[in-house]
Amino acid sequence: MPKMHEHEPKFIRTIPSGDSMERDVCATCGFVDYKNPKIVVGSVVTWGEKILLCKRAIEPRKGYWTLPAGYLELNETAEDGAAREAQEEALADIEIERLLAVYSIPRISQVQLMFRARLKSAEIGAGPESEEVGLYDWADIPWPDLAFPSVGWALRHYRETKDRKDFPPFSNPVDGL
Amino acid sequence: MPKMHEHEPKFIRTIPSGDSMERDVCATCGFVDYKNPKIVVGSVVTWGEKILLCKRAIEPRKGYWTLPAGYLELNETAEDGAAREAQEEALADIEIERLLAVYSIPRISQVQLMFRARLKSAEIGAGPESEEVGLYDWADIPWPDLAFPSVGWALRHYRETKDRKDFPPFSNPVDGL
Repeated sequence: MPKMHEHEPKFIRTIPSGDSMERDVCATCGFVDYKNPKIVVGSVVTWGEKILLCKRAIEPRKGYWTLPAGYLELNETAEDGAAREAQEEALADIEIERLLAVYSIPRISQVQLMFRARLKSAEIGAGPESEEVGLYDWADIPWPDLAFPSVGWALRHYRETKDRKDFPPFSNPVDGL
Repeated sequence: MPKMHEHEPKFIRTIPSGDSMERDVCATCGFVDYKNPKIVVGSVVTWGEKILLCKRAIEPRKGYWTLPAGYLELNETAEDGAAREAQEEALADIEIERLLAVYSIPRISQVQLMFRARLKSAEIGAGPESEEVGLYDWADIPWPDLAFPSVGWALRHYRETKDRKDFPPFSNPVDGL
């Protein structure tokens, strides 16, 4: 990735050479400020039949329940990022099993890579971004209080395939875009 | 996504509130210049038994062969981005079949989503980023002249699963990181 200019940039809106779309380009150094979609990595983490959920301590959707997930960082594989998020949000040590789903949320320019994973031990706890974490039976999942639509999608897609190894990953449900 | 500040930013290196890593933060407005990994979307596109390859007209790896692939744009689904890249680089009208592989290239902070796709017609041509495009039999693929390692991975992963519908997507080959 190009390094950010060290002077104060003066952005103009123009189509860089070899490109086909307008970008913010620094008039001083030619730095192109490409705006890119973001990658969210997360996982449906299980302990036996129970599923790990985290109650959000931060906005957006503070107080609602989510799966451990967050932005992939630089120089990280998708699997390592998902494991880091489980550690940060639920103090959970997990083993990634396989890719469950790839959701595209074009409205907010996100691609979400959701994995299926197992807890290595039942020791979990609330990290700084969580008010509370818990291991939930399917029947006890707080459906009306899920933080984001894609949390529900991932839970349902996990449930449909939990006893299978070989399946193509899901994308957005047909009713989900 | 936050809008870029309209004044000239004065970046300082600090940990934003609620974050755990140092970022470039504008001392004037508080804008956080998050640097994120990039998403590449592409596809192994077939016409019968033949595979679509593009000879690169641009750096990096000008003159070497690649699959139609490029950066996902804002407000685009992964599938739409892969179809756009095939149109731009090979004037190819494709139908995405399914996700073939998710490769993480942490050294350059990329996640690559590679799909399996079919040409809707045999009409193809070199777009501005291609010197030449062609439909290749497996035996005629110019292996020593492929542009990037992940092009070879995707071709081999396609070949292993071309007659299957249900399989988990591949990630980097064990010898590939």
